[in-house]
Amino acid sequence: MISQRMYELGSKKSTIREIFEYAKQRAAIVGSENIFDFSIGNPSVPPPDCVNDSIREILATEDSTQTHGYTTAHGDPIARAAVAQFVNQKFGTDYTADHFYITVGAAASIRICLAALTNPGDEYIIFAPFFPEYAVWVEDAGAKLNVVPADTDSFQIDFAALKQQINAHTKGIIVNSPNNPSGAVYSLDTIKQLAQILKEASQEYGHPIFLIADEPYREIVYDGIQVPHLPLYYPNTLICYSYSKALSLPGERIGYILVPPSVLRFADVYAAICGGGRVLGYVNAPSLFQKVIARCGDQTSDISVYKKNRDLLYDGLTKMGYTCVKPGGTFYLFPRCLEADAVYFCKKAQQYDLLLVPGDDFACPGHFRIAYCVPTERIERALPVFARLAKDYGL
Amino acid sequence: MISQRMYELGSKKSTIREIFEYAKQRAAIVGSENIFDFSIGNPSVPPPDCVNDSIREILATEDSTQTHGYTTAHGDPIARAAVAQFVNQKFGTDYTADHFYITVGAAASIRICLAALTNPGDEYIIFAPFFPEYAVWVEDAGAKLNVVPADTDSFQIDFAALKQQINAHTKGIIVNSPNNPSGAVYSLDTIKQLAQILKEASQEYGHPIFLIADEPYREIVYDGIQVPHLPLYYPNTLICYSYSKALSLPGERIGYILVPPSVLRFADVYAAICGGGRVLGYVNAPSLFQKVIARCGDQTSDISVYKKNRDLLYDGLTKMGYTCVKPGGTFYLFPRCLEADAVYFCKKAQQYDLLLVPGDDFACPGHFRIAYCVPTERIERALPVFARLAKDYGL
Repeated sequence: MISQRMYELGSKKSTIREIFEYAKQRAAIVGSENIFDFSIGNPSVPPPDCVNDSIREILATEDSTQTHGYTTAHGDPIARAAVAQFVNQKFGTDYTADHFYITVGAAASIRICLAALTNPGDEYIIFAPFFPEYAVWVEDAGAKLNVVPADTDSFQIDFAALKQQINAHTKGIIVNSPNNPSGAVYSLDTIKQLAQILKEASQEYGHPIFLIADEPYREIVYDGIQVPHLPLYYPNTLICYSYSKALSLPGERIGYILVPPSVLRFADVYAAICGGGRVLGYVNAPSLFQKVIARCGDQTSDISVYKKNRDLLYDGLTKMGYTCVKPGGTFYLFPRCLEADAVYFCKKAQQYDLLLVPGDDFACPGHFRIAYCVPTERIERALPVFARLAKDYGL
Repeated sequence: MISQRMYELGSKKSTIREIFEYAKQRAAIVGSENIFDFSIGNPSVPPPDCVNDSIREILATEDSTQTHGYTTAHGDPIARAAVAQFVNQKFGTDYTADHFYITVGAAASIRICLAALTNPGDEYIIFAPFFPEYAVWVEDAGAKLNVVPADTDSFQIDFAALKQQINAHTKGIIVNSPNNPSGAVYSLDTIKQLAQILKEASQEYGHPIFLIADEPYREIVYDGIQVPHLPLYYPNTLICYSYSKALSLPGERIGYILVPPSVLRFADVYAAICGGGRVLGYVNAPSLFQKVIARCGDQTSDISVYKKNRDLLYDGLTKMGYTCVKPGGTFYLFPRCLEADAVYFCKKAQQYDLLLVPGDDFACPGHFRIAYCVPTERIERALPVFARLAKDYGL
């Protein structure tokens, strides 16, 4: 009567959703201040003042019918031009408005790219650990997903494993650096090696293998790290961006797809992206927020809070004996569990009111994710609890 | 290398888009005040003050991280409760928040419903004339679309033709009343007959045939017409609503799906809709505008302008000898062309700088659409031009 697959996708609760509901119940008993909920990647700092100031100014000065009216499907030309300028400033590129397609957030960006590129029989490759919705979107686009196991020593790329996965059906590779959940940022060396392998494979199989780069955390990096701009290293790259994380606008659903002019048959690819947006029912990205990003898209919320949280947690946990690859960005830490079974470990942590997500959810067992986009004082109070958990395991 | 179908959908310009671009070029020559552009269904009156006032108030009083933060995927509970209350007030129903799924506009609503319901081999039925994107969405959901030819005498339903189209594969019927492009509103008699046929066919084939009702124009009706609430007549109805037209918020992409409790296996259908939203990449509807509709969803922009425009145009054109079913709602008029070929007729009208859309675009040749969501004075100035066109045809 209905689609069984949609029923299952809509009714099966994700682990994160289950934790979220447990947290609410538990908070009612012990008080929300005593729950250490590290499960959700929801920015904890407000957007910069520019956002609300811009909204007020737009409402005060612009024609209301226009402000809330349709834009062209690929985005208001002024917003696209502004975004191009911001990207050019950051990366020294020379993009124009014509290289951008404004979207209803990064999820839409990725889903649209998959629709635009996929033909029956196509396959995509992704590196563990990864955000589980990628698998849902790839499957829904009618393609097969192949997973390259994590290189848990560095959360860079296991290139030997990658080479085994590439074949004649490979349409694209999805990368997410800075990475959710590991926080790892791909090094320049990693990117150059990846580009080389993809160039060779594209040549071998006689068609481009696209790099789909999901970059919502691009601005949330520490210690002077700069996220390299992938199209400068690999021409057939599509950048999927979102203002959800760095600008703290996750609910407003605003982002873009950058189709660099280096992409083979650029005009055709851009047109296919327009077609993808159309079939999925995306008429245009929210119009008021297109105007907002045209004004504030080069700003970020106060990211120093996340840096402080990372340092506190990373230093604290490693001193206790936890092992963890130091993350260069995002607001996630992805340490090794203190026992083999991450699900069991997270259940045990839950007894201490530490709410963590097992790495199994990100195709990387044996680890757990801490989303440290929370008030710093919560981390300060959580550290002794992590210590008690470690002590239980004999550390 | 890419999806040929997406390329074609993204690169082929729609007739309306072509007219839009012609209008810009022509305006540069003769001045925009001398172009009578009746091609686009973009509301011409601003949203009610409630919209911008609410935005200012939300920014002034609520926590900014929260305001722009994720909501649950099916929508903020407060927004869903408010929408339920507004619908209950209007139709005397007793819906709750749990019956609503807030979406990124009506296009998203329809596309999600199709994803939720469709299994391989399914078919949908639609009545001409219809908005052409329905065909794109049905095809993309993997189903076949069957078109019931228009009853051009009334733009109600040709039930004999409908009965011929229903078969064991029919999963649903898409209706759009008030209708784009005809402006027709289904009478209670039409709805009762339709419900009866669908009940009988559901029984005959042993599965429910869903009624998917696209109702963005529900509030834009004249002469005391009330759009009947379909679930009161047919239990397996899904209502797809949008605040684009009556609240003049087309660019903000905000609407909902109403899944009435009368729907067979309600919980499963609602879950499948959640799954549909998920696979298509709709994370949540824009959060600020969820709050706006919670405050303003029972209001409309000043619809009296459209009424005035309809009367002026309908009375004017019929006096000149044009024939037209008098529309009960929307901001469209759909008269018969003065020659058989609507495309040619619209080309001829274009020579007078009257920009009209041929009915062929809505699967209803021999007619043309006038979108009268324009300033009234433009209609006043256009009437003599329509008269000259009529004179050319010997009227």
